[in-house]
Amino acid sequence: MRMRKKKWADPYLQDHDDFCFSNPIDLKGKWKTLLNTKELHVEIGCGKGDYFNEMALAYPNTGWVAIEKDHSAAAVACKKSIEEYENLQNKRMIVNDASNLMDWFEEGEIDVIHLNFSDPWPKKYTHKRRLSSEKFLKMYYALLSKNGYIQMKTDNKDLFESSVLYFLENQFQITDISVDYRRNKHEEDAITEYERRFMDLNQPIYFLIAKPIKNK
Amino acid sequence: MRMRKKKWADPYLQDHDDFCFSNPIDLKGKWKTLLNTKELHVEIGCGKGDYFNEMALAYPNTGWVAIEKDHSAAAVACKKSIEEYENLQNKRMIVNDASNLMDWFEEGEIDVIHLNFSDPWPKKYTHKRRLSSEKFLKMYYALLSKNGYIQMKTDNKDLFESSVLYFLENQFQITDISVDYRRNKHEEDAITEYERRFMDLNQPIYFLIAKPIKNK
Repeated sequence: MRMRKKKWADPYLQDHDDFCFSNPIDLKGKWKTLLNTKELHVEIGCGKGDYFNEMALAYPNTGWVAIEKDHSAAAVACKKSIEEYENLQNKRMIVNDASNLMDWFEEGEIDVIHLNFSDPWPKKYTHKRRLSSEKFLKMYYALLSKNGYIQMKTDNKDLFESSVLYFLENQFQITDISVDYRRNKHEEDAITEYERRFMDLNQPIYFLIAKPIKNK
Repeated sequence: MRMRKKKWADPYLQDHDDFCFSNPIDLKGKWKTLLNTKELHVEIGCGKGDYFNEMALAYPNTGWVAIEKDHSAAAVACKKSIEEYENLQNKRMIVNDASNLMDWFEEGEIDVIHLNFSDPWPKKYTHKRRLSSEKFLKMYYALLSKNGYIQMKTDNKDLFESSVLYFLENQFQITDISVDYRRNKHEEDAITEYERRFMDLNQPIYFLIAKPIKNK
């Protein structure tokens, strides 16, 4: 979900660097304390932040961290959090590349990783940039808690099919899968405007839950 | 794919019991010799036999066995084989319930099992009758050769989603998956009239390859 560059983005992010961090290495291992929660959710590639903001509002006892490397999108998400939502206490943002995840989180610190409508990087030589590619799965494997899991949703067929195989090839078990997630009610999971567009076009949303196979 | 009962079915099947067997226990372990092949394909639930007949024609060096318990469907498939196709030497049929598979095939004897548009048995208490349910997967696991695999196609979302989990829970690895198989050309795989109806309605065909995890 690329967007036009917004001139106000960087100044806004700098003004709110107590909410949207750029490189929070000091918080490694301390997120649950900061957000006063026992359950840490991290959305990687949050775009304009609708899912993150809705879910953090709907689940006030869980902690939410949204990561977005695109400064313009991150600034929109940050601005919405601050100006439209009242709950700031159980959430924070990181504006930076998720390749640096290991700098910010301790092994086993994250309970749920959310991948929503990630960039499909369709060309073969760019597949390694996919957020469900091997490099990232190795990090997620280390960062997820013992009962932790990844929840992935996408409208992209190629990304979904490849991702199923990526997970299975990288020590993850798939414990739930849907080829048309929204044909059933899932009130527990926020629907963003972005997702609604596919639903209005009768395009299926693909969904899966993947758990690291640990203690083998 | 249930069909209206055909009165001519049973007499026809009896007249051709050298092609369509009812309980071929004597052929256990001998199918490759009978069909003069090194690669044995078995389609379970062949319906009217279009896939079986087309594939056996397209791949004359492989052996094909089609199993169908519905006598009327089996009789149609058998009649087509005999009257419309010239190649009978590399194929046979079994008209009986696939629950008896272990009586007819030796462990490791089958190279590829095909499940095409199997009955989805939608009600929960009937799920155990699905051809990809645990009881059947245990048999397939035993019957497949070391490099053998199952190829499954269906239009049914619930059956597909459940089947992915059945395979993963029963010592199978998924090595290929598609949520819209026919969006790409697959000339290697025959398209039946039945399948064509879904394609014409723009309904996706779901596909997967599952391999038994052996030698652990």
